[in-house]
Amino acid sequence: MTDRIFATYLIETRYPLEVAAAAMAGEQSSGTFRAIPGETPELLKRFGARVEFIDDVMEVENEALPFSRSPQAAKATKPRRARVGLSWSVENTGTVLASVWSTVLGNLFELHHFSAMRLLDVTFPDFFADAYPGPAFAVGGTRHLTGVEGRPLIGTIIKPSVGLTPEETAALADTLIAAGLDFIKDDELMGNPPHSPFERRFEAVMAVIDRHADRTGRKVMYAANISGDVDVMRRQLDLIDRRGGTCAMLVLNSVGLSGVIEIRRHSAVALHGHRAGWGLFSRSPDIGMSYLAYQKFWRLAGIDHMHVNGLSNKFCEQDESVMASAHACLTPMFERAGRPDTVMPVFSSGQTAVQAADTFGGLGSNDFIYCCGGGIMAHPGGPAAGVRSLHDAFDAAAAGISARDYAATHPELEAALQAFG
Amino acid sequence: MTDRIFATYLIETRYPLEVAAAAMAGEQSSGTFRAIPGETPELLKRFGARVEFIDDVMEVENEALPFSRSPQAAKATKPRRARVGLSWSVENTGTVLASVWSTVLGNLFELHHFSAMRLLDVTFPDFFADAYPGPAFAVGGTRHLTGVEGRPLIGTIIKPSVGLTPEETAALADTLIAAGLDFIKDDELMGNPPHSPFERRFEAVMAVIDRHADRTGRKVMYAANISGDVDVMRRQLDLIDRRGGTCAMLVLNSVGLSGVIEIRRHSAVALHGHRAGWGLFSRSPDIGMSYLAYQKFWRLAGIDHMHVNGLSNKFCEQDESVMASAHACLTPMFERAGRPDTVMPVFSSGQTAVQAADTFGGLGSNDFIYCCGGGIMAHPGGPAAGVRSLHDAFDAAAAGISARDYAATHPELEAALQAFG
Repeated sequence: MTDRIFATYLIETRYPLEVAAAAMAGEQSSGTFRAIPGETPELLKRFGARVEFIDDVMEVENEALPFSRSPQAAKATKPRRARVGLSWSVENTGTVLASVWSTVLGNLFELHHFSAMRLLDVTFPDFFADAYPGPAFAVGGTRHLTGVEGRPLIGTIIKPSVGLTPEETAALADTLIAAGLDFIKDDELMGNPPHSPFERRFEAVMAVIDRHADRTGRKVMYAANISGDVDVMRRQLDLIDRRGGTCAMLVLNSVGLSGVIEIRRHSAVALHGHRAGWGLFSRSPDIGMSYLAYQKFWRLAGIDHMHVNGLSNKFCEQDESVMASAHACLTPMFERAGRPDTVMPVFSSGQTAVQAADTFGGLGSNDFIYCCGGGIMAHPGGPAAGVRSLHDAFDAAAAGISARDYAATHPELEAALQAFG
Repeated sequence: MTDRIFATYLIETRYPLEVAAAAMAGEQSSGTFRAIPGETPELLKRFGARVEFIDDVMEVENEALPFSRSPQAAKATKPRRARVGLSWSVENTGTVLASVWSTVLGNLFELHHFSAMRLLDVTFPDFFADAYPGPAFAVGGTRHLTGVEGRPLIGTIIKPSVGLTPEETAALADTLIAAGLDFIKDDELMGNPPHSPFERRFEAVMAVIDRHADRTGRKVMYAANISGDVDVMRRQLDLIDRRGGTCAMLVLNSVGLSGVIEIRRHSAVALHGHRAGWGLFSRSPDIGMSYLAYQKFWRLAGIDHMHVNGLSNKFCEQDESVMASAHACLTPMFERAGRPDTVMPVFSSGQTAVQAADTFGGLGSNDFIYCCGGGIMAHPGGPAAGVRSLHDAFDAAAAGISARDYAATHPELEAALQAFG
């Protein structure tokens, strides 16, 4: 139990590491490098950021980012990389997430001392678990809403991302749900455009979902993308709840922290967090933040599902990074767990039955949503065979049988491995 | 007049440039690289992103960012940098800013084709000027509220950033306002912490402001930092308005687009936009976005003042970039200007009388806020002499007289040039 917020950074600097770390601490607490009236030793002790540790990592040949500056004496030395831990009293920020954001991120990335700066982790004191409600549905609630136990949720994203009318969207949803899916979602590009107004699209898709639910006894979860202005989002959330929907999707980086917190206060359904724009924070090894740090803000804000990309994805991210993100989602944030605070990782991007075993094996859990597009729609036996191939693949993985062996008696899996392997 | 959204990017890729641009367009409209059912030629023509131009810039030796991929045939070729223009029908997004954000940023930064990706500019069709109210006060309103005409507003940031009690903050504000300032603001690290609850701090500072206003006839603008949860921000905005405050500050990157739009709907005071965290988007030449693009989103959302750093600042940003940002703020966004939509740039970070002439000269306008800390508090003649030195410096610049010459008859300016030059 501590009352301090901890953050860990990767830095690169030509300054002596102690000087560089002190500059970070100064900028992010008193906010100035020089002694000024009012900044007493007592004040600094109580409110100054504390340098918790400095781990020298290595010397590097060249500065990673341009325009850093260093004292003349250091010009001849090579830059060093280090890990730096800082901490702040919760007295500095209160339990306000936006204030923590300004404190652990803020101006650090612009300080002239540094030629690389990444936030690697942030740890919140337990107070924050009281200040923010966290995910309302998380893993257990999502399973309850969908009626899926003991295996991953199988989902898909409606494509093409834009252009379909509400009726065309509903027809596609009909095909997908008939194929046996647990979960469907809008693309992050689909919001509330003139050709597919949210209310009409939502109603059309829900009518399909209800029809299938009457048949199967299970209601497919539809993550309808409400990302937009807060007043409109609130109306759309009301509609979703009133109409028996169970989920809404938010594009986290555009809605923003305050917007997501406001929606969580208002929402009676699960909140599906899309990370579009995440590349801005993750793509460079020299600037940005880790997903480990990133997802903690959104979990506290109340998101239930967090996108983590997928193994062998169509993007740049490496498999090791994808699995680290998924593990982060399933790792509790607080020691004193008064409620479940882990969230469901969402795998997507080029996913098929082929990656199922490694996904399940790497995660050591079936508490995730597995979204496939081509892996379902482009299955040689059609969408239903595509969904069947995914169930087969996860059944095999759970039983410790190789997909190859299991495929010998499961033709849909066999066809998937051949088509997508 | 167009109904399309335009965006320009800097890219780096080993793919043929046409293939790379087509991948961007595909990901950000249909959302998939392969032909799928429902994606008819008519649909693509109407809703597909259009590649407007590709300007080959140059070949580079090495890939800037790791983990891009390219076809085997391209492995031997060197990466190329290019400028690419894309456009989308407003039918794709409607006039929803969050949807535009997902469309012009979104997954682009993660596409495996690219080893560099920056958004350079975005242009909104005139519809957006009707869909969003834009800045309510902007330049003229801010001048009206502060009673400052014909010169820049002189301001400061209360430091130390954290730790002062409301009473200590008010005492410091008293000194600063007595010195003749037009504008004071909270630091972005100061929000609503236990040691300085927002309501108590705001009331204490406003009492000081009112006392001076009775004396001078001008009310100093106090940008009180409300960044936090939306419900609390709304209550704080109400308090500011009820108590006769004229401004609230928002940390744009933590409050987020939807949060800022919601606050603008609710606000009767000027909104001061702080860009803490901006380094995440700007520091690397290989990933991120330009300030030109960035500030357009916030202006549409309704921000009146935008931080742009300052000349010879304590951070990494180069002077040329600072002035380009300030120019962007004072450049109208829409051809059909039914209302003023330019916003006031805010210069800060190590500013003193020394940079005044270049700031005024570079901008060709005195429509800006000029925030100094040490340039006022550390002036050898005290804070009032510090403020006087700034007025002198801008008077000289407006009269086309060099600061050096003007200083001969203006001792406060002379002292500032000696102390800070």
